[in-house]
Amino acid sequence: MDLNSDVGESFGAWTIGQDEALIPLVSSVNIACGFHAGDPLVMERTIALARSAGAGVGAHPGYPDLAGFGRRDLEMALPELEAAVLYQVAALAGMARAGGVELRHVKPHGALYHRAGRDPAVAEAIARAVRRVSAELILVGMAGSATLEAGRAAGLPVAAEAFVDRPYQADGTLRPRRLPGGVMEDPAAAAAQALRIAREGRVQAWEGGILEVRADTLCIHGDTPGAVEFARAVRAALEAAGISVEPMAPAPW
Amino acid sequence: MDLNSDVGESFGAWTIGQDEALIPLVSSVNIACGFHAGDPLVMERTIALARSAGAGVGAHPGYPDLAGFGRRDLEMALPELEAAVLYQVAALAGMARAGGVELRHVKPHGALYHRAGRDPAVAEAIARAVRRVSAELILVGMAGSATLEAGRAAGLPVAAEAFVDRPYQADGTLRPRRLPGGVMEDPAAAAAQALRIAREGRVQAWEGGILEVRADTLCIHGDTPGAVEFARAVRAALEAAGISVEPMAPAPW
Amino acid sequence: MDLNSDVGESFGAWTIGQDEALIPLVSSVNIACGFHAGDPLVMERTIALARSAGAGVGAHPGYPDLAGFGRRDLEMALPELEAAVLYQVAALAGMARAGGVELRHVKPHGALYHRAGRDPAVAEAIARAVRRVSAELILVGMAGSATLEAGRAAGLPVAAEAFVDRPYQADGTLRPRRLPGGVMEDPAAAAAQALRIAREGRVQAWEGGILEVRADTLCIHGDTPGAVEFARAVRAALEAAGISVEPMAPAPW
Amino acid sequence: MDLNSDVGESFGAWTIGQDEALIPLVSSVNIACGFHAGDPLVMERTIALARSAGAGVGAHPGYPDLAGFGRRDLEMALPELEAAVLYQVAALAGMARAGGVELRHVKPHGALYHRAGRDPAVAEAIARAVRRVSAELILVGMAGSATLEAGRAAGLPVAAEAFVDRPYQADGTLRPRRLPGGVMEDPAAAAAQALRIAREGRVQAWEGGILEVRADTLCIHGDTPGAVEFARAVRAALEAAGISVEPMAPAPW
Repeated sequence: MDLNSDVGESFGAWTIGQDEALIPLVSSVNIACGFHAGDPLVMERTIALARSAGAGVGAHPGYPDLAGFGRRDLEMALPELEAAVLYQVAALAGMARAGGVELRHVKPHGALYHRAGRDPAVAEAIARAVRRVSAELILVGMAGSATLEAGRAAGLPVAAEAFVDRPYQADGTLRPRRLPGGVMEDPAAAAAQALRIAREGRVQAWEGGILEVRADTLCIHGDTPGAVEFARAVRAALEAAGISVEPMAPAPW
Repeated sequence: MDLNSDVGESFGAWTIGQDEALIPLVSSVNIACGFHAGDPLVMERTIALARSAGAGVGAHPGYPDLAGFGRRDLEMALPELEAAVLYQVAALAGMARAGGVELRHVKPHGALYHRAGRDPAVAEAIARAVRRVSAELILVGMAGSATLEAGRAAGLPVAAEAFVDRPYQADGTLRPRRLPGGVMEDPAAAAAQALRIAREGRVQAWEGGILEVRADTLCIHGDTPGAVEFARAVRAALEAAGISVEPMAPAPW
Repeated sequence: MDLNSDVGESFGAWTIGQDEALIPLVSSVNIACGFHAGDPLVMERTIALARSAGAGVGAHPGYPDLAGFGRRDLEMALPELEAAVLYQVAALAGMARAGGVELRHVKPHGALYHRAGRDPAVAEAIARAVRRVSAELILVGMAGSATLEAGRAAGLPVAAEAFVDRPYQADGTLRPRRLPGGVMEDPAAAAAQALRIAREGRVQAWEGGILEVRADTLCIHGDTPGAVEFARAVRAALEAAGISVEPMAPAPW
Repeated sequence: MDLNSDVGESFGAWTIGQDEALIPLVSSVNIACGFHAGDPLVMERTIALARSAGAGVGAHPGYPDLAGFGRRDLEMALPELEAAVLYQVAALAGMARAGGVELRHVKPHGALYHRAGRDPAVAEAIARAVRRVSAELILVGMAGSATLEAGRAAGLPVAAEAFVDRPYQADGTLRPRRLPGGVMEDPAAAAAQALRIAREGRVQAWEGGILEVRADTLCIHGDTPGAVEFARAVRAALEAAGISVEPMAPAPW
């Protein structure tokens, strides 16, 4: 099982996340590409950290919206969006290669991730952009999302993502952050959810009942205060159960 | 002899230059990479135009300064500058490859071009960035500049650039645009200067006297009103003299 | 009757519009505030042009999206949007005063204009921001829009806007630009539409039939090639009919 | 004696400084205006904090360089620079008024502060911009700098600034941050330096010897980890010595 985290989200004088502590605990990282966060120097340093830690390097393209951190939906025309994703993935792929490591996967960021998950035209534009860089890049999206479908249709390997630090609701969506319990506070709870997804492909839904969640990679949110503790607990739980934590591989679907 | 021009400098709703008319007349193009001008969609379209016309594709990285069009010097720390050039070249190289053509050269833009020409530390940072993308990329700089020296020291092929639509002064610099005669108005004068550089490696200096100017590539400024007429006149003069116009090749130094 | 036009939309090295020719022909101008277009120097010069011409000066705030020219909808949280509009209006108001003229009106730009027209919460956020600068600023919106309603509710004077260079459809919306006939090509047709709106409060709908369109101000799009000819024709037609062209005044509703 | 601090330097999702704790401890704040840091919502909230705490509100305009946090010199043409400062001061002045408080002073930020201190043409451009907003705004600059001279020449009240958390060198400059001892670590040392400046107009130079430093306002750097402790220690020392801490007033020169 793969553990992934969004990293490289600092910008200029501003720091977010605890990349130095977090990156050694996960097996894949999604590196911001300068449009919603990150800058060339941050990207270079984050690639070097990932390489040292042996984490799989991925691109984390987002909307061109620094002020909104890529979390606000933006009505980009599809050719613009495709070009914007192509640009970001190409920049990170080239910087990774210059840093001695090959890009392995692409995971859209924030509002673009969610939009792609539900809007096939957006998902297809992203998949086209990724495919134009390389047919070997793994496209990461939420299990069951339009993103994965578009990736497969474009001939890309895909990886289904599940979340371990946020509760699922009965309809398969994550409980919103703003609601009580929307973000887990106990690393042990995240570890338990991770373990159940990894072993059974299931989670307990917030309202009760069991939900099927197949996952190739588990996301630890890097911008929460306890991210490092969560990653440590999840990794320990998986390893204690004999599940090795290693970079995502293409789904065998 | 190569004719090069800066292109792809439109941005969003704003258009500069006459790329569709100009690109077929030159043999190499320097494409803006989104920091001082250009955006992903403009880059994609410009690469396609260059590919159709058979022009050699180059990256034209600049300072991160859209508001100043990369024409204002910016005191970037060298690691920041190196990362910024690496990012831009990587982005354009990847987009070019996705567009079916390989990146051949890199020419810094505007204030960065001039700074690199006289500041060895800046020139070396640029050369390192280019070298990290590929040892086969040609680094373009003014004849006699620190840029070319840094490129050679980094093991890169280099190309010396001369200008045909601006008069040279006796000290080897270009006559400033703001002075009378600083920008040529007669395409025939540019054609004559181009021909003399190509055949003799010399130009007539503004103050009188003859100046040695060895060049591997001749620049036509793309953002002047008469750029297309200048390019047409220069190309015709070179071809009439039996000098074929073709993409720059590494200097045999 | 007032004629208004969007101006000051150049940015750095990039020029859009023909402000020097257009501004003397209209009676009010909406000046971009640096978020979707415009920069401080462009704003300063545009204010000076408007002052010389005696045109009423308005702020034209937009989404923070230079790359998209403010034409793409952006899901800003309401407090962010209110602050962004307040910032832009305050900047232009202060620069206008420094330039010897008082700000008279505010007209949202592009995607924000259209969003405010149909989304009361967005319209109210804009109205609050304008009201916080001054209760005497006129808020401009499409006739019948949520913008005007929000402005009135906030205690602001409002001005209803109609368009003269675009055909109306039977449902009261403008015929989309991308459809045949979506942008008028004949200045005389625009002049006729302007005259009918000014005299009768009516237009001929694209599909046939008559539509009621009450207007306090008529918009001439400044970024179309023939903007100057359209403005000249519309102004001449109004004046020939004895309708004086002068800056908008608060609607007497 | 006034204590001032740079605040409102967060941007979007990124936080810098401890504004909520620091603002109540100082008597004047310099609020970033969105060019090098800050955004409209951050500005609005920072104005509200300052108002609650009774701190004097100032504008802190910088170069348009978010990626560099305004700390890199940028070769702006003087009309561009003047317009950029005018824009920022106008925006903050208008937002302050909308927030129930009047702008009192202007202090340039970072590289612009240092450039203005030594370059009379830059200082004059800034002073002109400030003067165009209001002749009552206090222009803040380093004691003995070109900034103060330009402010006086423009008819503005000025305030000389000294630093309490950085050692002075014998030539009157601050010991560079990158050198050992360049940033004080002991709040008591800062308090002692503050007290000596306030009472005697003198500091102990790093190399030994005594330096004259007249100051109307003392700066506490807000972006250092111990800023809150430093502010508390300095304020306590001043008050214990019977020196009241209150917003800067025009220098009686």
